[in-house]
Amino acid sequence: MESGTPFFAGLDLGGTFLKYAVGDAQGRIIYKNKKPSRANESQQDVFNVIFDAITDLQEQAVNNSGTLKAVSVGSPGAIDFEHGRLIGATPNISNWENADIRGKIQSRFGLPVWADNDANIMVFAESRQGAAKGCQNVIGATLGTGIGGGILIDGELYRGTCYAGAEIGHMMIVHNGLACNCGGYGCFEQYASAPAMVRHYINLLTEAKKPIPEAVSTVMIFHRAEAGEPEADQAIDITLDYLGTGFAGLVNIFNPEMIVIGGGVADAGDAFIARIKQAIEKKAMKPALQGLKVVRAVLGNDAGFVGCVSLAAEMYLKQN
Amino acid sequence: MESGTPFFAGLDLGGTFLKYAVGDAQGRIIYKNKKPSRANESQQDVFNVIFDAITDLQEQAVNNSGTLKAVSVGSPGAIDFEHGRLIGATPNISNWENADIRGKIQSRFGLPVWADNDANIMVFAESRQGAAKGCQNVIGATLGTGIGGGILIDGELYRGTCYAGAEIGHMMIVHNGLACNCGGYGCFEQYASAPAMVRHYINLLTEAKKPIPEAVSTVMIFHRAEAGEPEADQAIDITLDYLGTGFAGLVNIFNPEMIVIGGGVADAGDAFIARIKQAIEKKAMKPALQGLKVVRAVLGNDAGFVGCVSLAAEMYLKQN
Repeated sequence: MESGTPFFAGLDLGGTFLKYAVGDAQGRIIYKNKKPSRANESQQDVFNVIFDAITDLQEQAVNNSGTLKAVSVGSPGAIDFEHGRLIGATPNISNWENADIRGKIQSRFGLPVWADNDANIMVFAESRQGAAKGCQNVIGATLGTGIGGGILIDGELYRGTCYAGAEIGHMMIVHNGLACNCGGYGCFEQYASAPAMVRHYINLLTEAKKPIPEAVSTVMIFHRAEAGEPEADQAIDITLDYLGTGFAGLVNIFNPEMIVIGGGVADAGDAFIARIKQAIEKKAMKPALQGLKVVRAVLGNDAGFVGCVSLAAEMYLKQN
Repeated sequence: MESGTPFFAGLDLGGTFLKYAVGDAQGRIIYKNKKPSRANESQQDVFNVIFDAITDLQEQAVNNSGTLKAVSVGSPGAIDFEHGRLIGATPNISNWENADIRGKIQSRFGLPVWADNDANIMVFAESRQGAAKGCQNVIGATLGTGIGGGILIDGELYRGTCYAGAEIGHMMIVHNGLACNCGGYGCFEQYASAPAMVRHYINLLTEAKKPIPEAVSTVMIFHRAEAGEPEADQAIDITLDYLGTGFAGLVNIFNPEMIVIGGGVADAGDAFIARIKQAIEKKAMKPALQGLKVVRAVLGNDAGFVGCVSLAAEMYLKQN
């Protein structure tokens, strides 16, 4: 039944769910679903979840008068894109060390398979189907527990010589500052991620001798700032100032067309994104700021499977 | 006389001299020369120096049984590579604002012309004829009065969307640190350039209540460190620590094969380069350090014209 419309599978493997979808050569999604990823079980268990998902997607392709032609998987961790496998381990999926994503899926389904890091997939998705559509030089940043990054140069992902690049969260913006779990000191994500904003806020409350809530989130900080609490407002300003330092450095290096910002902190909304842009404009070089757009990612939680469907389609069509 | 061996002209325009050379399609230099660049005179005067040099090179090409086929010029300032002209002004050449390098030379000689920023040309030269020959992903850094940068990705120069990228000296490594003439704060070059090392040294001498020499240079600091003066040694260590912070951030972003270091400070020698590598290894992420080479630029003052000859040859041969 190798006939009909060519379809492409995109799988977004996370610590809680495997989200997956099938789409056409233009990356349009025709079906999506999710399953628990069994991230704390054996490597084979995780692969079984992936296999079930691909079987589901193959059936969906046939039901839509087509055939599944290729698969792409986004995963946490450093990924050797050339060979489609993990380099080392990732804390989010317990037994995922050196997982041979391409090898395992290929030997089961006989389909071409690509795998890439989830932060790369996010910026790829935005460049193909989202906010950065048509852009050539893009910095993608996910502001959440850390700061994840993806870099698009001349329309293609830049992965680094051993696929270990694009770690914009580990550019150091405070010389010999806070120790980071990456082994460095003063990394961008230590000062401008969600936990950093929470830390700035708790520090300000402590200084002001105000009570510290049991659970502080960035959502709470944004709400309290709106309600007029000065410490919440100041915690946001401090975070914005660090975001300005980090992104301005990246602007001076990459002179990108666009910075696309996703992740939980970006959900604070467009006004917050506009303030990030102002913070960058205070510090970056004028020629590198020309025409720069700073925008919010639009694909949200769909970015993983949307990016993977587009990646599978592009890579397959390049080779066929 | 459009016959014989094809030759290519490379011109390196500086604040004091125009250095220029002619070479073959493989970039081998067959003749080089230099003239005062008349950098403080009118724009036309500077172009006249360039015209004389190209006439000289045309004659050399003919004397070597060939023809000059294309010209490439390296210049200080931001350069619109697509149109071969300056973007704005540069302090090094007084009346060079918006100079139409390609237009002026083309209308005089009828030859194809390319122009690029001198820091870009330096890393290009090293990648084609020097220390980074054959490398695909390279960071070039010139440690001198400032920190100049060039970035090679997949074997080609990355210039940024409006040719304003690769300003690695203006990545910010000290959040809200020293004001930089670029408009930013805490830029890499404010802490790790030659004047920065001199400043660290003078601060240490002042703290130690030791006499401060009238003219301090990095050469003096390296000599005094070798002679066992603790403040000189410490000034070098402080500079190395900042170099570690800046380059480690770049390694985490680019995961390059190689960092090529040129400029006056690099003349301190291979032992200093080895210490820079150690400083980077202390702070960069392990996967991104894999296989990283940190080497001294080998072309020195010839890098400008050598890079331009190779650039002219490559661009010409791509189009013909």
